[in-house]
Amino acid sequence: MTRIGIIGLEGRMGQALERAIAESGATVSGGIDKGGDPLALARESDVLVDFSVPAALEANLDAAVAANVPIVIGTTGLEERHHWLIDSASDRIAVLQTGNTSLGVTLLAHLVHEAATRLGEDWDIEIAEMHHRHKVDAPSGTALLLGEAAARARGLDLNRDSERGRDGLTGARARGAIGFASLRGGSVAGDHTVFLAGDDERIELTHRAENRMVFARGAVRACLWLHDKPAGRYTMPQVLGLA
Amino acid sequence: MTRIGIIGLEGRMGQALERAIAESGATVSGGIDKGGDPLALARESDVLVDFSVPAALEANLDAAVAANVPIVIGTTGLEERHHWLIDSASDRIAVLQTGNTSLGVTLLAHLVHEAATRLGEDWDIEIAEMHHRHKVDAPSGTALLLGEAAARARGLDLNRDSERGRDGLTGARARGAIGFASLRGGSVAGDHTVFLAGDDERIELTHRAENRMVFARGAVRACLWLHDKPAGRYTMPQVLGLA
Amino acid sequence: MTRIGIIGLEGRMGQALERAIAESGATVSGGIDKGGDPLALARESDVLVDFSVPAALEANLDAAVAANVPIVIGTTGLEERHHWLIDSASDRIAVLQTGNTSLGVTLLAHLVHEAATRLGEDWDIEIAEMHHRHKVDAPSGTALLLGEAAARARGLDLNRDSERGRDGLTGARARGAIGFASLRGGSVAGDHTVFLAGDDERIELTHRAENRMVFARGAVRACLWLHDKPAGRYTMPQVLGLA
Amino acid sequence: MTRIGIIGLEGRMGQALERAIAESGATVSGGIDKGGDPLALARESDVLVDFSVPAALEANLDAAVAANVPIVIGTTGLEERHHWLIDSASDRIAVLQTGNTSLGVTLLAHLVHEAATRLGEDWDIEIAEMHHRHKVDAPSGTALLLGEAAARARGLDLNRDSERGRDGLTGARARGAIGFASLRGGSVAGDHTVFLAGDDERIELTHRAENRMVFARGAVRACLWLHDKPAGRYTMPQVLGLA
Repeated sequence: MTRIGIIGLEGRMGQALERAIAESGATVSGGIDKGGDPLALARESDVLVDFSVPAALEANLDAAVAANVPIVIGTTGLEERHHWLIDSASDRIAVLQTGNTSLGVTLLAHLVHEAATRLGEDWDIEIAEMHHRHKVDAPSGTALLLGEAAARARGLDLNRDSERGRDGLTGARARGAIGFASLRGGSVAGDHTVFLAGDDERIELTHRAENRMVFARGAVRACLWLHDKPAGRYTMPQVLGLA
Repeated sequence: MTRIGIIGLEGRMGQALERAIAESGATVSGGIDKGGDPLALARESDVLVDFSVPAALEANLDAAVAANVPIVIGTTGLEERHHWLIDSASDRIAVLQTGNTSLGVTLLAHLVHEAATRLGEDWDIEIAEMHHRHKVDAPSGTALLLGEAAARARGLDLNRDSERGRDGLTGARARGAIGFASLRGGSVAGDHTVFLAGDDERIELTHRAENRMVFARGAVRACLWLHDKPAGRYTMPQVLGLA
Repeated sequence: MTRIGIIGLEGRMGQALERAIAESGATVSGGIDKGGDPLALARESDVLVDFSVPAALEANLDAAVAANVPIVIGTTGLEERHHWLIDSASDRIAVLQTGNTSLGVTLLAHLVHEAATRLGEDWDIEIAEMHHRHKVDAPSGTALLLGEAAARARGLDLNRDSERGRDGLTGARARGAIGFASLRGGSVAGDHTVFLAGDDERIELTHRAENRMVFARGAVRACLWLHDKPAGRYTMPQVLGLA
Repeated sequence: MTRIGIIGLEGRMGQALERAIAESGATVSGGIDKGGDPLALARESDVLVDFSVPAALEANLDAAVAANVPIVIGTTGLEERHHWLIDSASDRIAVLQTGNTSLGVTLLAHLVHEAATRLGEDWDIEIAEMHHRHKVDAPSGTALLLGEAAARARGLDLNRDSERGRDGLTGARARGAIGFASLRGGSVAGDHTVFLAGDDERIELTHRAENRMVFARGAVRACLWLHDKPAGRYTMPQVLGLA
């Protein structure tokens, strides 16, 4: 029976992960939060799942490498240097990092790539997302994941070719840019829409998560898929057979 | 310069077609309505475009065959016997029939096929459409076209496996069925949403046409593409290089 | 401590009601389903809440009258004769029947009334709803409640002036009619949109319930408000101070 | 026959205004753009309509005052000092300034005020808007107009109590704030949604303009209503009898 260790047990995903692990037939080997010992947890686990904060990532990866256990990372708000750490750890263990663990979003990213490939640059791409009032970063990790799918399709660099946080005298939209807009409120688990807006017509590709169990179930599915994989960096489309 | 003959000149699409033909650099060879002579029109045209009514289809096809000119058919509300007539005519001339001539809808159908293929039958498929208050048939030809894309992906027969016009004590949703719902009002040119609804999450794939020019431009593009093709039955994805 | 008796304990709302009653500080006096004895339940309760089936309504009302306890009715799919039974019972006890117990929907109905009053009949009114795959009736009770708000504002009779279940050759939309369309799929707790579609512009008024707790909490709030009221027929807007 | 002078004739609204004036039975007295003489135009007009740029506002108001003709101002991107100029001019002539001239938006603002009044501060208010790729300011004038309606209902000051252009580590949403998000793309004439997001449920109030004629017709209606009014500052709800 696969033993899954939860990093970020008290966070918004912790409880949902416990429930999803129970549903799946796996077991919770333990859970930690700020101040907890990731290495001790890693040693009792077959695989780790991390929904904590970017500041904890380095220690969590070190623990996973030291204990030689794979790790699924769902923490959002990662920056470039976090991705370097992940790349480095993935030389030694199996790592799967994703902005969203749901089946629906993983498929949506695939559709966005397809649409952005087929429609010319005269179809502007915009991404809107809405999350609950407690979320602290914007755009959401999922919005960026969807933006990456579009950018890849068009040969863009999201760091350079995006328009975020429009406010004031912005000037006209830059051709080829990908726009992002973030809404916050209530208890929304996570809604995302990718717009492809052409002349006189538009396509809108939306995902709505009704609650956090969707992400927890996907994360557990990723854990079970990852736990016997060799070192390397993996993705959700691989888990779901979409890539 | 390609000469395009318009069948259904006084209809809602007639004016838009005239404008789109002018924009494209082609010319209008003439236009007819109820009581007009399709054969005389066909003889003066390099290609016909028909946005009239199902009852006129047989005469229009006969005229196209007799004059040996290709025909693009955008008439909605066609039944099985109309498709037989089209199949039969396509042995002699090039025919392109479609429920929607826009680039966006053609791409959307492609995305729907992809999503319906990748997601299991536990993701229910529903199609909603909204059109202006004057539309006389439901569901729209475009909704059926999107339904066909989903049905093809799942090996369903839309005639058997669909739920249309729910009202009263319908019982629970049939597993694997494709549902349709139609809204009418105002001057809406045409909005369509395909829902794929799973447990605790859902995907919504939407197309919005802002006005009829979108359809007219696509129809003219189809005419220009079709006018030198050999006999056969063609589709919009072929026009747009998506198939 | 108010004792609330649940009719329809095993149904989709039963569990949510138990949780919402616990949250509110009231207590569950008991619960019954098909075959249970409503009179025995009524005698142990300060107020009843009924989310069962139309066929059980008469017996439930008789029990409430016999035990002299108020009753909140959230059962959907009621017909005219059920409303006569409710009217008759409300001469003896306090009865609150509603198609939807949520605060948000109650407010939405108020906004729909306002909009339908202010905008002329050249703004067509359409109501779309989406619910989970297990729902057996269409349109939803909430859709009808919203339709009633619009009909009242315009002096219409919903039985006569509505278009439901459009399918096939429907003809053009009837001026002044209110249209209904129903979608079913996944685990959707309940989404409703009222469209007011004019020439070249439209208003869409939407409510989304993320889960059933919204309805359960509203029903418990209605129970606590109703339990000491004199005989009469009451409404959700009264509970929420909107009327 | 009322003579209407158009300031901003070559802009995106100019053509639509010409058409709407013709439809209404009024006449176009003339039109100017950058470099044109507003005073000469004002002297030939019974009323002015200004859809130009903030930088031109002072000269336009001066001309209207000098010629003693009322003026309708639909220019967006105004700042506080522009409103002072308008207030000052309105001591001498009738002035109507609005972020949106459509009937639908004017009603929507009324509904937003109503909803924000009735629902407590635990319902977060967010406003999203989408406009064509050429728009240079964000949020749109209409989004701000809707935000003002919400702020007025809750006794908020939009300058202080709003969250605009979220990007990066924003921290959790401030209680009571009104959020704004702007999307740009394609040829979208103008879509706005006001979200009221509570626990487990949400209300979304949307307006969609299909094209610019909606605004042009509303502006002309405002001109015809305003042209014989005494000095003062007027609003769209007054034109439409909603206030």
